[in-house]
Amino acid sequence: MVVIGGGTAGLVSAAGGASLGARVALVEQDRLGGECLNYGCVPTKALIRSAKVASLMRRASEFGIKPVPVEVDFGAMMSRMRTVVERAGEADSPERFRSLGVEVFLGEEARFVGPREVSVNGRRFRARSIILATGSHASMPPVDGLEETGYVDNVSVLELERMPRSVVIVGAGPIGSEYAQMLARLGCRVELICSKGGPLPAEEPEVVEALGGFLTADGVRLHRGYRAEEARRENGEKVVVARSKGGASVELRGEEILVAAGRAPTVESLGLENAGVEVGEQGLEVDERLRTTAENVYAAGDVTGVLRFTHAAEYQARIALQNALFPVKRKADYRFVPWTTFTDPEVARVGLTEKEARERHGHVEVFRQHFSDLDRAICDGEAKGFAKIVTGKGGRILGGHIIGPDAGNLIGELVLAMRKNITIGELSQTVHVYPTLSEVNKRVADDYYREKFFTRRNRKALSAFFRVRRLLSRR
Amino acid sequence: MVVIGGGTAGLVSAAGGASLGARVALVEQDRLGGECLNYGCVPTKALIRSAKVASLMRRASEFGIKPVPVEVDFGAMMSRMRTVVERAGEADSPERFRSLGVEVFLGEEARFVGPREVSVNGRRFRARSIILATGSHASMPPVDGLEETGYVDNVSVLELERMPRSVVIVGAGPIGSEYAQMLARLGCRVELICSKGGPLPAEEPEVVEALGGFLTADGVRLHRGYRAEEARRENGEKVVVARSKGGASVELRGEEILVAAGRAPTVESLGLENAGVEVGEQGLEVDERLRTTAENVYAAGDVTGVLRFTHAAEYQARIALQNALFPVKRKADYRFVPWTTFTDPEVARVGLTEKEARERHGHVEVFRQHFSDLDRAICDGEAKGFAKIVTGKGGRILGGHIIGPDAGNLIGELVLAMRKNITIGELSQTVHVYPTLSEVNKRVADDYYREKFFTRRNRKALSAFFRVRRLLSRR
Repeated sequence: MVVIGGGTAGLVSAAGGASLGARVALVEQDRLGGECLNYGCVPTKALIRSAKVASLMRRASEFGIKPVPVEVDFGAMMSRMRTVVERAGEADSPERFRSLGVEVFLGEEARFVGPREVSVNGRRFRARSIILATGSHASMPPVDGLEETGYVDNVSVLELERMPRSVVIVGAGPIGSEYAQMLARLGCRVELICSKGGPLPAEEPEVVEALGGFLTADGVRLHRGYRAEEARRENGEKVVVARSKGGASVELRGEEILVAAGRAPTVESLGLENAGVEVGEQGLEVDERLRTTAENVYAAGDVTGVLRFTHAAEYQARIALQNALFPVKRKADYRFVPWTTFTDPEVARVGLTEKEARERHGHVEVFRQHFSDLDRAICDGEAKGFAKIVTGKGGRILGGHIIGPDAGNLIGELVLAMRKNITIGELSQTVHVYPTLSEVNKRVADDYYREKFFTRRNRKALSAFFRVRRLLSRR
Repeated sequence: MVVIGGGTAGLVSAAGGASLGARVALVEQDRLGGECLNYGCVPTKALIRSAKVASLMRRASEFGIKPVPVEVDFGAMMSRMRTVVERAGEADSPERFRSLGVEVFLGEEARFVGPREVSVNGRRFRARSIILATGSHASMPPVDGLEETGYVDNVSVLELERMPRSVVIVGAGPIGSEYAQMLARLGCRVELICSKGGPLPAEEPEVVEALGGFLTADGVRLHRGYRAEEARRENGEKVVVARSKGGASVELRGEEILVAAGRAPTVESLGLENAGVEVGEQGLEVDERLRTTAENVYAAGDVTGVLRFTHAAEYQARIALQNALFPVKRKADYRFVPWTTFTDPEVARVGLTEKEARERHGHVEVFRQHFSDLDRAICDGEAKGFAKIVTGKGGRILGGHIIGPDAGNLIGELVLAMRKNITIGELSQTVHVYPTLSEVNKRVADDYYREKFFTRRNRKALSAFFRVRRLLSRR
């Protein structure tokens, strides 16, 4: 087996394949660990943590601590980020994979020469099966003059040597939203261009609305419904001209421009045409079994364009690996794959939005709990956001949406419940530790339970029961 | 129905009873909300949060922020704590309960005059059933001279007007351990007397060991295996003499003594003898249906002496209420009741320890994951502690033990899994969001999965399969 790409999907495939006893070659152009470890999840979460600590320090007096001046040492923060990446990357070292029996080719490009043949630096490999896990990269929006004006993307932003005083961010998906808040908290003036109605536009409208408020409170200036169209330099600043559908236009100025306007599959120079592997709009064409249009070529991770998350890449890789090696094929099922955006508070989701659920299931019910009523959130000074659960027949959970402290951890219970067909009523019957944030799921569920149990009919019957009993006991 | 005691158990009983249409009187001597809201969980979690923020501020440079002087304003911190209690207590206001139809008697004592009759301030109430929810209070250890020397308990410590420079804490259960770390982080010198081998001695020995290390790192001086025997005043200080079983003795000095040496049920002056309600060693004698030794008297919460936690009180109250009002009786089942101690990192638990599991189930297996290998914990600078899962036949989860960041939230997934008979193998198959701390449960489960799947036999079979296939493909 040849695995092309050493990010999460490639590493899981290669390690799994070798552990199963297959002969595996792994080819990576850059560094093992991929986008997530080197330019994505890990470095951003390290920076987000620094920004969170800075934000708590600014709130010191709220917690009964004397106010202090908060000054970020940009170099030290970036250097901590690099140390974190290094430490998190220890598990992804070439030595570890070599010790598992994987033949690792680092800094090399792989290219198909035929449907079952790949060349790596002039050497040719015949493989029974090939897993493509080449990932994705920032895609460039059609903004006139962007190249000439200069910009950073999620990779080059990590190489900045000093903090820009101001940044214009093009795109308000997960990357744009996380950076907008983090940079604002670090003291940078941030203009965030949201092409749709707000940050994370694919989420529940009420989540988008709430997040918009939280980002604004942190000082981010939101420009909703605008598209970046032109960029230029002016008086040593970078200027982005953005226009709304209605034709209104704004000129946003910053020391830097951060482009976070979507991702494109990394498929160039792979010689896919030599293998008959076809590329669709979002990524490689794959079927439910993660097979590409070539019989023996499977794909996993961002390059498929399906749910670009590290944990989704791991999930896909396990399936692609099984299907690549064995005759019994498994299908991918994304219904129970959750995701989280690591703003503060976090935004987590699994399953359908309310609208999607209504379209597919007709009548659905919705229950909510605000963190402002949750004791632990009040104690922690983090009482913002809410959890929302969308249910179908019999209390079946169709979707979970949490914007609030620790949402990424809290969504886990809903994922397990959905996957194992545990109803919302059962969550209400499960004891949750007081005072923890995890109570939020139970409190939502309690509402469901109350509503189902205390129907008008039940109330009438109970009232009659107690009345009769009182009468009898008086005799 | 008469409910005696307006803490969690009493409030849940009273609100539930009234919602069901029963006529309910609720009697509380002090304030609604009970120990948890007023003197326990809520105020301590507020103070713990202040201490956590102070601790993060001291670590500023670790996160790339310029170091600052950290000075706690004790008065402001205590006043924040009171505001938090007030806000969390809004749901427990007498007005809310009155609006539900509950007759509320505040500041009054209730006393049994017969098995079905209670007097409140001279007024007599006949009730079909009575729920006792009078809670618990700090019990006094047999320490000579303690009264004369003076001390604070979990109630009076909240009334301190300035921070003591040094404190001797008697007792290293949840209350003693939480206060020890919090006070140390606020700048107080803390001597912690652990009568057994360390803090939280009822937990897994390896958890006790780890927590001991974390408390020590925060500056707490642990005295393991010592019992406080005498107290006196000397040169304006309070002195506690503690002795070990071996006869060694230490003299510990502090500006204040905090007694956290267990809890006693609050049963005085209730006239229990008039109703035939008997008191055992830990609390009221109750059966599995939470009935006391009197036919129509039920009990819930700390007064039962069973698992003194707010969420356990709520769980018991739901059962006591049903059994008090209706002919169909339910039994309490504590197997799936988790708990957490809110040190930093938190200590959370559900089910059996490894030793208990071995005693009851014979052969068990144990799997662990350290937070030092978990990417999010590394990013957050909170990479300490571990999760441990004890499993029986077929991967059935018998116990979960987490000492680590957010442990109180993370245990929830294991509670749901245990309650719904979801095996550890299934946890491994459930997608968890990367990078979140909730991955810890999955990583433990992955270990189980690997161990079950990659047996020697499976490895041999797989190896043979690939060898044969390679031979065939060469022809």
